[in-house]
Amino acid sequence: MLFTDFGSSDIYLGQVKSVLRRLAPRAAMIDLANDLPPFNVRASAHLLDALKSVFSEGSVFLCVVDPGVGTARGAVVLEADGRRYVGPDNGLMSVVAARATAIKLSSIAWRPAGLSDSFHGRDLFAPVVARIAAGTLAPDQLRPLSALATSFGADDLEEIIYVDHYGNACTGIRSAHARADRLLIAKGRRVAGARVFGEVPQRTPLWHGNSHGLVEIAVNCGSAAQVLGLRVGDSVSWVD
Amino acid sequence: MLFTDFGSSDIYLGQVKSVLRRLAPRAAMIDLANDLPPFNVRASAHLLDALKSVFSEGSVFLCVVDPGVGTARGAVVLEADGRRYVGPDNGLMSVVAARATAIKLSSIAWRPAGLSDSFHGRDLFAPVVARIAAGTLAPDQLRPLSALATSFGADDLEEIIYVDHYGNACTGIRSAHARADRLLIAKGRRVAGARVFGEVPQRTPLWHGNSHGLVEIAVNCGSAAQVLGLRVGDSVSWVD
Amino acid sequence: MLFTDFGSSDIYLGQVKSVLRRLAPRAAMIDLANDLPPFNVRASAHLLDALKSVFSEGSVFLCVVDPGVGTARGAVVLEADGRRYVGPDNGLMSVVAARATAIKLSSIAWRPAGLSDSFHGRDLFAPVVARIAAGTLAPDQLRPLSALATSFGADDLEEIIYVDHYGNACTGIRSAHARADRLLIAKGRRVAGARVFGEVPQRTPLWHGNSHGLVEIAVNCGSAAQVLGLRVGDSVSWVD
Repeated sequence: MLFTDFGSSDIYLGQVKSVLRRLAPRAAMIDLANDLPPFNVRASAHLLDALKSVFSEGSVFLCVVDPGVGTARGAVVLEADGRRYVGPDNGLMSVVAARATAIKLSSIAWRPAGLSDSFHGRDLFAPVVARIAAGTLAPDQLRPLSALATSFGADDLEEIIYVDHYGNACTGIRSAHARADRLLIAKGRRVAGARVFGEVPQRTPLWHGNSHGLVEIAVNCGSAAQVLGLRVGDSVSWVD
Repeated sequence: MLFTDFGSSDIYLGQVKSVLRRLAPRAAMIDLANDLPPFNVRASAHLLDALKSVFSEGSVFLCVVDPGVGTARGAVVLEADGRRYVGPDNGLMSVVAARATAIKLSSIAWRPAGLSDSFHGRDLFAPVVARIAAGTLAPDQLRPLSALATSFGADDLEEIIYVDHYGNACTGIRSAHARADRLLIAKGRRVAGARVFGEVPQRTPLWHGNSHGLVEIAVNCGSAAQVLGLRVGDSVSWVD
Repeated sequence: MLFTDFGSSDIYLGQVKSVLRRLAPRAAMIDLANDLPPFNVRASAHLLDALKSVFSEGSVFLCVVDPGVGTARGAVVLEADGRRYVGPDNGLMSVVAARATAIKLSSIAWRPAGLSDSFHGRDLFAPVVARIAAGTLAPDQLRPLSALATSFGADDLEEIIYVDHYGNACTGIRSAHARADRLLIAKGRRVAGARVFGEVPQRTPLWHGNSHGLVEIAVNCGSAAQVLGLRVGDSVSWVD
């Protein structure tokens, strides 16, 4: 499962997939998300936690939003509730880790010959993902790790964490916690809850619990991002 | 075959593919089109009919352009000339159905536990597509249906139905019906026919029968959409 | 390996993949790059040479940036250093050919029934790629060819050849040739070299040798294309 900011239209994913295919020819490769907001690790950390459950236990996630590539940040493997996550130790997996019932952390000790300075997704993380998926990772390539270097914690994030191509603006608030009669404030505007888009008049903003369990601001047959001027990183809050 | 408005760069396709892979691990998944104009079911219905023949008989199409998701619209399976189509009963498959020589319609009686309100593509349609492809759909999951609830009919659509990334503007007019010496009017401008782009001077608009059998307005080494200001939904017409 | 300007979000790739899947069901299909700058064959020819080594020997590349489709330009297969390339004879493979240690050229004599005027990627090149991958290409479908009709030669190209979605602007200059202390001029601005983005202050342009061996202009946590106003085709040069 690929969860990156490499860009679905760009030249990086194909190189990553070439490595995965060579080292794990029988593993399925699925693009979960490859157009994550570049450089925003915290927002993506919350999105990753929300999307993980769509994938069955045993799945391995290649997680790369990595503005610090080439610097000294660590490289880690997280096992959490039966799924494994491989990527930089910059907080990206920390929300999954903080909310999991059982985790195991390892740092990646292995370094490939010819590691590039700017593309660890292809040179370091993809080989590790492939070898985990294929069951060919040598034990000495990992070392036990006691804690992540960066963690954003388990709490909800009262911010827009993702805007989809329809213009729906997803927050980092889990909808299981959200009372249907509460009002959400975004960009100074109060937004009421609804179950489905079709329940409110066209062009009216609403919030609803979306299909991956987060509170999302939407507009029936329109773009909430446009109507309300919302972007990733904008704060939202409940009225009392 | 995926024919949706889920967005090739967005987070929805990966979830759909995860379901398809789990329930039909041996079936090929091909992205036919995933950036269909959102909310424009009629245009996409004509495009689906034009593109279907590229795929061999036996193919199963997941067809989702579904602004009414979560409302009472039905869910159907269409068998038409050896191919099967799964999606909402909102007209999306109706042009294929109206032009086919033999069809069989079924409504999807099955509903999954935990059906989300906004993502039937993942929760309802993908499992049905996967089980049809894998031959594991239980007979009582479908019920005979006499007619589609919404149909756009078999006629050509004299509108722009798709603009590609080069800026070619495809109409819903089948080119087999089109006389090469006719002029097409779009945005008040008369456009002559040509066989290939290279036949006319650079930056001059032309119409031609495109590779999926539709009349398309193009500009040699340029964008017809930009030069003529064309968008999906704009009317076109023949001069007499 | 698909190397085209068909657009990763558009309706063309799915049709190509349908053909590849039908004729070579066991071959892996990887999208290397499908959003190459349309109509700019020369820039893409340099990018193809840079990216080829990520793929193992034996790989077959479908290479289509083909503004002259439907005109008299030839169709070729290039074998170079263990990899094969299929596409139009318009210079796209010529940089690979000019830099290879050993090459073999063939022209594609075969033409399919029902060849469209505008989509040789699907109708002509994809079947040839699939049959080469599957080992089912009949010998009389190719003819020996002594030289490419168009060649850009082996030299570096002092131009921007690709801008990625982060805004990094890649040149056609191989970084193995580049002395780290040289200054690069782009749009009248002098840019110094650095090893990784994190070495320079945020928003400061730098050049570095990128992960596919080319000199690239980047901005730490920002878009070089935006900061410097760079586009594909812009000239760059070294300060002596």
